[in-house]
Amino acid sequence: MKKIAVILSGCGVFDGSEIHEAVLTLLSITQAGASYQCFAPNISQFHVINHLTGEVESDQQRNVLVESARIARGDIQDLAMLDATKFDALVLPGGFGAAKNLSDFAFKGADCQINVEVLNACQLFAQAKKPAAYICIAPALIPLVYGPGVTATIGTDPATAEQLTLLGANHQNCEVNEFVMDETAKVISTPAYMLAGSIAQAAQGIDKTIKQLLVMIP
Amino acid sequence: MKKIAVILSGCGVFDGSEIHEAVLTLLSITQAGASYQCFAPNISQFHVINHLTGEVESDQQRNVLVESARIARGDIQDLAMLDATKFDALVLPGGFGAAKNLSDFAFKGADCQINVEVLNACQLFAQAKKPAAYICIAPALIPLVYGPGVTATIGTDPATAEQLTLLGANHQNCEVNEFVMDETAKVISTPAYMLAGSIAQAAQGIDKTIKQLLVMIP
Repeated sequence: MKKIAVILSGCGVFDGSEIHEAVLTLLSITQAGASYQCFAPNISQFHVINHLTGEVESDQQRNVLVESARIARGDIQDLAMLDATKFDALVLPGGFGAAKNLSDFAFKGADCQINVEVLNACQLFAQAKKPAAYICIAPALIPLVYGPGVTATIGTDPATAEQLTLLGANHQNCEVNEFVMDETAKVISTPAYMLAGSIAQAAQGIDKTIKQLLVMIP
Repeated sequence: MKKIAVILSGCGVFDGSEIHEAVLTLLSITQAGASYQCFAPNISQFHVINHLTGEVESDQQRNVLVESARIARGDIQDLAMLDATKFDALVLPGGFGAAKNLSDFAFKGADCQINVEVLNACQLFAQAKKPAAYICIAPALIPLVYGPGVTATIGTDPATAEQLTLLGANHQNCEVNEFVMDETAKVISTPAYMLAGSIAQAAQGIDKTIKQLLVMIP
């Protein structure tokens, strides 16, 4: 059975993993007959957003691994434990967590830095030529992991696409129900909620992306 | 377009809505061409569980509506605002939130009480003969809403089934990929993660349940 590592970044679109995207990822993996293990870095969230009001809860502090465990029903491991040799592929769902916790792309754009543990984990898959899928805003990490010239998409938003270009990516516009593939790097990306108007739309692109990811496993 | 009200109970299987079940519910509704609006009671959670360790975080307090907003991507309303006349059907996903926040079934079994606002909302659908679906452990609320003799399932667990029977339900065992229907009361229930060994299994029963719910709308 093909084994997929999934890196989460919290639990909630505005300060963590986008929940629909994460769940749809796990669904597509399982429906395709593969298995998954969730991971997350054991670090504090950048901040906590009240998802009802949209406001920062400045008196609260939450941990990325602990909150990600909600999406994983408790079955999650510290990203420090991720042994890439034991997995066939990698997926990073989106949500602001990818751009606030796994990196600071949400605040610094092309001047962003990626969490070192996240970078190391992702680069192990890249160096081993194991396929990886980055969803929604997570593709902002692709040029940081793969280096200049790698092809990726965050959908069609010009301002965000420009930041990826400044990071060295070859950005290609992509519709919500499609993905973009860099065949050499073996990395694929799909816009999901960067463009999706509904969960059913997000599911189309994510399911197609996960199916492609599994096909790319030798 | 058919409009479905979805009542959430927090965000995380151990102290709120089971995230996979909630997301799969929204997915099935949308894929079937219907629309949804999420609601949750504006009350404190019974407690906060660290989903990584399983332990109670006794120094933390979270609000059911605020945390449910994570699953709803911010698009959620206070349950007090639910006008049943504006919706065609109702869904309650599972998770311990249904048995800890919407009621105290998790602690008191057949001696449980249901939150009055939740009871009122659910009964408005019942009295209007609008169909409703209860998932996982949420069917424990069915006898409280519909009264003695109503048919429901929580899967096959004998101890939990006995508590439903004591509450007056006609409990029927049910496999994970099926649902149980009370045609007179127009209420259906499915075990989901009371039995599911994977998200794909939970999705089978939930999708079948939501499709049946939509068929039951005149």
